[in-house]
Amino acid sequence: MTGAVATKPDKPVTGPAIILVEPQLGENIGAAARAMLNCGLTELRLVRPRDGWPNPKAVSASAGADWVVDNAQVFRNTREAISDLHLVYATTARSRDMVKPVYTPSGAASEIRKEIALNRKVGILFGRERSGLTNHDVMQTQGIITAPLNPAYSSLNLGQSVLLIAWEFLKTADTTPEIDAFIGDGELAPQSDVQGLINHLNEELDAASFYRSPEQRPTMQQNLHNIFARARLTEQEAKTLRGVVARLAALRRQLKS
Amino acid sequence: MTGAVATKPDKPVTGPAIILVEPQLGENIGAAARAMLNCGLTELRLVRPRDGWPNPKAVSASAGADWVVDNAQVFRNTREAISDLHLVYATTARSRDMVKPVYTPSGAASEIRKEIALNRKVGILFGRERSGLTNHDVMQTQGIITAPLNPAYSSLNLGQSVLLIAWEFLKTADTTPEIDAFIGDGELAPQSDVQGLINHLNEELDAASFYRSPEQRPTMQQNLHNIFARARLTEQEAKTLRGVVARLAALRRQLKS
Repeated sequence: MTGAVATKPDKPVTGPAIILVEPQLGENIGAAARAMLNCGLTELRLVRPRDGWPNPKAVSASAGADWVVDNAQVFRNTREAISDLHLVYATTARSRDMVKPVYTPSGAASEIRKEIALNRKVGILFGRERSGLTNHDVMQTQGIITAPLNPAYSSLNLGQSVLLIAWEFLKTADTTPEIDAFIGDGELAPQSDVQGLINHLNEELDAASFYRSPEQRPTMQQNLHNIFARARLTEQEAKTLRGVVARLAALRRQLKS
Repeated sequence: MTGAVATKPDKPVTGPAIILVEPQLGENIGAAARAMLNCGLTELRLVRPRDGWPNPKAVSASAGADWVVDNAQVFRNTREAISDLHLVYATTARSRDMVKPVYTPSGAASEIRKEIALNRKVGILFGRERSGLTNHDVMQTQGIITAPLNPAYSSLNLGQSVLLIAWEFLKTADTTPEIDAFIGDGELAPQSDVQGLINHLNEELDAASFYRSPEQRPTMQQNLHNIFARARLTEQEAKTLRGVVARLAALRRQLKS
C-alpha cells in the first residue's frame, strides 16, 4: 500500500501550480505568468510548449513577471507534470462525457484553499489554445473547473483563463471591504459643519431673493440641506463650500453696489 | 432644476458600458471586446484611441467578438463619453488623494447590478495602458474600483482588467452551483450495486488467498468497501468494476488449472 499517500512537500504550499498543457504561443505563456503573479501565484509548469523552451516571447509578454517564466518547469507529458501533486483540477469550457465533479472557479478556489491549508499540493491544468485539454488529460484529474460564461461565446484566451482562476483563488484569502469610503488624509466633517454651511447658504439666498414665493422656501431649503447631508463632506470640503458661498455672495454685493 | 435627473434610456439596460480612455494598442481593444462578450457585455466606448479608428488590429484580436469592436462608439474626451450615463466608476490600481468610495470588483458589480435593475445607465472607465486614468477622469465619477491584487505586482493588462470587472458583473446574476456532481448520461448506482461489487470482490480475494492473516481481513475489507462507497459510482461504473473482478478471477483460475 505504499504510494497511496503522496509525500508531503518540504516547504509550505502557498498556492496551486498552474500547468499549461502544450501551449502554442509564447505570448500566452507570458500573459499567464503575469496573471499568476498579479494574484500571488508563482509556480508555473509547462507540458511540451510547442515552440520549445526557453521562449523569448514568453519573457517579453510577462512584463515584470519574467522570473515566474524563468522558473517554469517543463515536462514531457501531463502524467509527469502532475506526478508529485495530491489533487489536480482540469479547466474546460466543454462538458465531458466523464463522471467527475464540476466546479465553478470560485467553488474550486474554496476547495483548493482548504486543501492547501492541509499542506496538500494542488495543480490546475489549462489546455491548448485551439483544442483545450484532451479527455486523456481530464481523466487524470479529481475535478473539472468550468466558468459559467456567455454560452454563445465562452472561449477564453489562455491568459484570461489563468487570470480568472488565479483571481478567484486570491479572493478566498482577501479581506478587503466591498466598499470603503476613502477620504484621503482628511476627516469627515461633523454635522455642525454641514449645518453651518447650509445656514450660511440660506442667509445668502434670502439676501439674494432666491425664493420666488415664500411657499417654496421650506421645501427648497430641505432639498438643499439633503444634498449636502448625503454627500458625507470632509472638513476641508465643508470649508471650501463655505468659501464658495461667501465669494459668490461678495461678488453679488459688489455688482449691486 | 431640469437636468437633475438624466433621461431614462429607450431600451432596457442590460449591463454597464465599458469605456476605454485613450487606449494605445489595438490588440488590447480587441482583447477587451473579447473579454466583454465572454461575460455578456456588448457596449464598448473609446475615448481618442491612439492609433485612430477603425483599427484592424482590434478586430483581429477580438476573435469572434468583432461585432462588439465594430459597434464601438468613439468620443473626443471622457466628458462626452459619459454624458448620457447616470453613474460612472473609475478603475484604478493607485489610491488617489480624492474623496470617493472605493469598491472591490465584486462590491462594484453588486452595486451596478442593482442600479441597472432600476434602468439606470452605468459606465466603467479604464485608463491608458501606461499611465491609467488621470485625476481629471477620476474626478468625474461616482466611485473607484480597485482590485486587491498582489501589492508587489498589481498592474493588470488592459484586457485582463476588463475581464475581471466583466466577470464579477456576470457572477452577480449567475446561479451555477459551486460544485455539481456531473455524471454524464448515467445514473448513480444504488448501494445494492456497491454491495454486490464488494461482496463479489471479497469472495474472489478469499478464493485467491489474498489475506495473509485472518486478523487483517475485516479491516482490509472495510477499507476496500470504503473506497468504492465514497467514489459515488454510477450504475455503469459498478458494472464495469464487476467485470474487472470477474475477468481477473477468471484469468487466475485458468493459470491454476
